[in-house]
Amino acid sequence: MRLPLIVLPITLTLTLLLDAAEAWPQEAPDPAMATTLGRIRDAGLSDDWAYRRLAELCDKIGARMSGSRQADAAVEQIAAALRAAGLDVSLQPVKVPHWVRGEEQAEMIEYPGRPAGVTQHLHLTTLGGSVATPVQGISGQVLVVHSFDELRAREGEARGKIVVFDVPFNETLAENGRAGTAYGQGVIYRAQGASAAARAGATAALVRTVGGANYRLPHTGEMNYDPKLPKIPTAALSAEDAMWVARLAAEGPVTLRIKLLPQSLPEVESHNVIADWPGRERPEEVVIVSGHLDSWDLAQGAIDDGAGVASAMGAVHLLQTLGLHARRTIRFVGWMSEENGSAGGQAYFNLNSAALERQIAAIESDNGAGRPLGVSAHVLPAALAQFSPLMAALSPMGATILDRREEAGGSDVQYLDAGGVPTLAPIVDTRTYFDYHHSAADTLDKVEPENIRRQVALMAMMAYFVADMPEALPRLPPSKPRVR
Amino acid sequence: MRLPLIVLPITLTLTLLLDAAEAWPQEAPDPAMATTLGRIRDAGLSDDWAYRRLAELCDKIGARMSGSRQADAAVEQIAAALRAAGLDVSLQPVKVPHWVRGEEQAEMIEYPGRPAGVTQHLHLTTLGGSVATPVQGISGQVLVVHSFDELRAREGEARGKIVVFDVPFNETLAENGRAGTAYGQGVIYRAQGASAAARAGATAALVRTVGGANYRLPHTGEMNYDPKLPKIPTAALSAEDAMWVARLAAEGPVTLRIKLLPQSLPEVESHNVIADWPGRERPEEVVIVSGHLDSWDLAQGAIDDGAGVASAMGAVHLLQTLGLHARRTIRFVGWMSEENGSAGGQAYFNLNSAALERQIAAIESDNGAGRPLGVSAHVLPAALAQFSPLMAALSPMGATILDRREEAGGSDVQYLDAGGVPTLAPIVDTRTYFDYHHSAADTLDKVEPENIRRQVALMAMMAYFVADMPEALPRLPPSKPRVR
Repeated sequence: MRLPLIVLPITLTLTLLLDAAEAWPQEAPDPAMATTLGRIRDAGLSDDWAYRRLAELCDKIGARMSGSRQADAAVEQIAAALRAAGLDVSLQPVKVPHWVRGEEQAEMIEYPGRPAGVTQHLHLTTLGGSVATPVQGISGQVLVVHSFDELRAREGEARGKIVVFDVPFNETLAENGRAGTAYGQGVIYRAQGASAAARAGATAALVRTVGGANYRLPHTGEMNYDPKLPKIPTAALSAEDAMWVARLAAEGPVTLRIKLLPQSLPEVESHNVIADWPGRERPEEVVIVSGHLDSWDLAQGAIDDGAGVASAMGAVHLLQTLGLHARRTIRFVGWMSEENGSAGGQAYFNLNSAALERQIAAIESDNGAGRPLGVSAHVLPAALAQFSPLMAALSPMGATILDRREEAGGSDVQYLDAGGVPTLAPIVDTRTYFDYHHSAADTLDKVEPENIRRQVALMAMMAYFVADMPEALPRLPPSKPRVR
Repeated sequence: MRLPLIVLPITLTLTLLLDAAEAWPQEAPDPAMATTLGRIRDAGLSDDWAYRRLAELCDKIGARMSGSRQADAAVEQIAAALRAAGLDVSLQPVKVPHWVRGEEQAEMIEYPGRPAGVTQHLHLTTLGGSVATPVQGISGQVLVVHSFDELRAREGEARGKIVVFDVPFNETLAENGRAGTAYGQGVIYRAQGASAAARAGATAALVRTVGGANYRLPHTGEMNYDPKLPKIPTAALSAEDAMWVARLAAEGPVTLRIKLLPQSLPEVESHNVIADWPGRERPEEVVIVSGHLDSWDLAQGAIDDGAGVASAMGAVHLLQTLGLHARRTIRFVGWMSEENGSAGGQAYFNLNSAALERQIAAIESDNGAGRPLGVSAHVLPAALAQFSPLMAALSPMGATILDRREEAGGSDVQYLDAGGVPTLAPIVDTRTYFDYHHSAADTLDKVEPENIRRQVALMAMMAYFVADMPEALPRLPPSKPRVR
């Protein structure tokens, strides 16, 4: 029996592989373009405007979960900063989910060898979108499994229990440049664990946190319910607590009491923030440069995705400062609600789907603030050759990888991608990204300002280059969006 | 005006320097002793009894703060394990403090550029021994300082405020083998910050957490009030939060609301656990091998000091298993209440002070579960030469440092040390020790079983060697205890 693949977890679409770079064919250089790209690069590498935007976003607003007051404040702050820079800003309405964490507690109340009167506090955090337990919490014996296969094999034991998925994050992969693969291997349990456990009759599902660096830190993130199955509450246990429960459960029965009291409130009207830097020849044609402005609620969202949205703002601001208009319009988009459902990306697509031919390409940065290493692109294979002038100009800053992927950018641009719009993203060093991602430790101090300067330079060069092509990049064959 | 050095913070006495090793003179080898030490070493390196004790202590009892039910359970568990091994166990009564953490919360409620309706949750943990705020909490503007000197220079600004000591932990020192120095530089703020702030009229003191590895993790620890000054509540802010508050305070007024509701309950009777492995010639003379069995309340206390107490148990158990009686008695002591006041060490000293000449030497391990690198010893300089057979036997396991220090072992043996009893300790690799120490992340998974085997071998060899010397190590000149 196979578990249905309900929906692909959103962030699986972050393809962070560094080991899949393809050779890219060379084209004869265009001296004017080379000069312009060099100017953008050198100016970007000495410009801290974007880092100051990031600091402002992190320190003044902090967490900005979709639906929250802080998310509104982020929209206002970013719009104001772009307007102050003289850009033409508009707010695009988006209906977003409004999920609020609430109380979260867990205790081990029974286990082999427990001294009388002793219980153990566990560190966990509710997963985004989870339903609540009853107000008084629930108690239940645990069934620890290490894979969906093991759950299927032990399905008869799961009824009435709390299933714990003890699946370690593969730090070796992450440290060796394959963080996205490591994340993908873990996140399927975060995304689908609750429904897999519900199918077996469990009352709740806990997953070992999906992230590196074990400092008793649970990482939150979106989960998805199979609409055909009961919705059961679900949370991430810190790696330490998952290992602890697993060690004890290997000796005998372990009983937990968990209380998770999130609320799913009515949808809220929020906004994508859009700012256009007009094209000089075909202003109605648009190349998007973007990041998402919402974050999880546990921290400042500095690397996810403050770094991306600030770098995208910085890219447009840099071109404006330099007075460089490409043939087409370069459009900054700060997407709302990437973290729980990508409503902003969907709303943008819906609004533009009638004239999708005007959306020439979409760039999104959503892989953090590591050092930029190159460009990933979901384009037709034949189009790769066209990138050689960009890659030549990026080479002096050490960003030398051009990697064709089946998707590029974050979840926000997936609808455009599915509609045939080429998508692109910076490739950055993600070795430590999942140590902080979605956790309380995603804070400004994790960001090296130099990397933001580099990312601004890279994204401005990408945007200018793609927006200035005499012929637009060829469309992709349409496909289905990856999420929902 | 100088701040009085009220009491030296306890854990400053952990001298973890690796860069101060002295050359040690050689003596002609004793073939019988070399053979015996080699037997102990090889048996210890393949014995997991101590690691199993550590796992049992961490997983079944977890945190064991002095005065708590768990601390009692730890006494019972350790005594039972030693009795089950056939050792002669006694419990020595100790009156211990009973401080209970209670609720702890902090929010930034005002800061420059704060959007209306937005406040910021800060991560902090109350310091051990702190008094409470009123139940409703207190609010106050912050004064951020980076040293006691700066506080003195800005004393006029502190009245009625919450002083924040933003002193970074020196990770470079720690990563280069000088973790104890790095800790010492930070811990004076944890220990004395509250009274320094109170002297300037502050209402509370927050210190940047004393520890490496920034994962939004506050580290607790003992603090000491100057009895001549008002007692104000005090807590450790995570490094990220201290940096955040400091960045904002550099721009303008920042107001915090903090609620810390610890309780200092009446003293409780607890126990040191003692188990003697009798000497074959002078059983009334004692060499102590020890660790402390209490821990902070935030985690399992695996490295502080589960590793030490388990290794000390393992050392005695190993000698018993081998049937090796030294000339003198080797006494395991599991000290109670090292973390807040060293009452166990004091009680032991008081009980034995009338015949202190029978206490020949005291070994304590309280520097974690890193790989053992050698031996530190507070002995007369002339006595170092006597250690060459021990060092020769340790050399095959790579523990080659013999370092004479002005104190060795943890706070528990300081009273004996002050009474002239030579003290010794394992030197272990402490590069990551303060990343976990006193935090929620001090859990069993941080301990490599191989290092416990090595520490058991090392401590058993040290204890046997010192207990078997034909002439006891010479006494030290008496001094004052380092703490209280």
